[in-house]
Amino acid sequence: MYKLYDFLPSGNGYKVRLLLTQLGIPFERIEMNILKGETRTPEFLKKNPNGRIPVLEIQPNVYLSESNAILFFLSDGTEFFPQESYQRAKVMQWLFFEQYSHEPNIATVRFWITELEKEEEYKSTIEQKRKLGYAALEVMENHLSSHTFFVGEKYSIVDIGLFAYTHVAEEGGFNLSRFPAIQAWIDRVKSQPNHIQITDNI
Amino acid sequence: MYKLYDFLPSGNGYKVRLLLTQLGIPFERIEMNILKGETRTPEFLKKNPNGRIPVLEIQPNVYLSESNAILFFLSDGTEFFPQESYQRAKVMQWLFFEQYSHEPNIATVRFWITELEKEEEYKSTIEQKRKLGYAALEVMENHLSSHTFFVGEKYSIVDIGLFAYTHVAEEGGFNLSRFPAIQAWIDRVKSQPNHIQITDNI
Repeated sequence: MYKLYDFLPSGNGYKVRLLLTQLGIPFERIEMNILKGETRTPEFLKKNPNGRIPVLEIQPNVYLSESNAILFFLSDGTEFFPQESYQRAKVMQWLFFEQYSHEPNIATVRFWITELEKEEEYKSTIEQKRKLGYAALEVMENHLSSHTFFVGEKYSIVDIGLFAYTHVAEEGGFNLSRFPAIQAWIDRVKSQPNHIQITDNI
Repeated sequence: MYKLYDFLPSGNGYKVRLLLTQLGIPFERIEMNILKGETRTPEFLKKNPNGRIPVLEIQPNVYLSESNAILFFLSDGTEFFPQESYQRAKVMQWLFFEQYSHEPNIATVRFWITELEKEEEYKSTIEQKRKLGYAALEVMENHLSSHTFFVGEKYSIVDIGLFAYTHVAEEGGFNLSRFPAIQAWIDRVKSQPNHIQITDNI
């Protein structure tokens, strides 16, 4: 059985939990307290030398890290990843957008506020990241204003990847009321079969 | 013929130029001066709403952005991308590592110093990014100390992806003499058939 090294509040971990559940693949979740440095121990660094969760243990001592790479691994050949080459590349385009332009701004601010409780201390950096995070949300809003899902008008791992931190962006102080197309898409993602919540400790 | 919207000093653009050349695929390169805002015009934002190069125009008005997604699109089914599912996922793992842990630190510092010429102004941020950039280089050095290439002991798009900004890291003040395995890998990448340099205006 797959083992998932995870941290429950993590959107990156949630992506993998959500896809595994929707694929009907059983897995064992192993909670790592990243606030206590549990992903920086010599033992964990053997699993992921970059010291981050999620890490999927596919077989004993065979590891895969980077949430969006795990989504690709689990979904290729399933209904959650397209077959046509341009659509496949567009899924990747949005997943790289997520890790470069979205997560470092939206997820990071949420983490600083809800986990580290350093909203005051990091105030000026948070302001810069809010601006970049809103720019990423604008790109999404623009796309979703004429599409039901990100690629091929069909729910796929790119929706899982972008949903994870978008639907909890307000925990980082982002106001989603300005983004009606994103809000409607969030509802569509939540209505998919076997949807679970980020707080579900499965 | 493919059109590549590009900026010659960009490592992200170079990745695509290098792979297209090694695949023997002809393309037209269209230089965009990002320093003059040429990727933020309404016309360019129709090609990539995120306002960045590289963008590959596959057919008239059919666009793909995000350098590593373009690498995936061009290489899948060729010798530059593996066929086995775990190896495919490991390529993606390292490409997401590149965009999350490597490029935002190593490439950004190089850009600020060589293009914006703001080494003094951005001094404290550069110090933070140097630390994170060196951590990414340590992860690479550790891996390359027992591997000839990143995945499957074979040159692939992950080597192209990580080579692009690593081999010019010294332009951003990173000292590569501490990383002998990276230096040897750089030489191996440079010795691949049809290698071109980042400065080659092809």
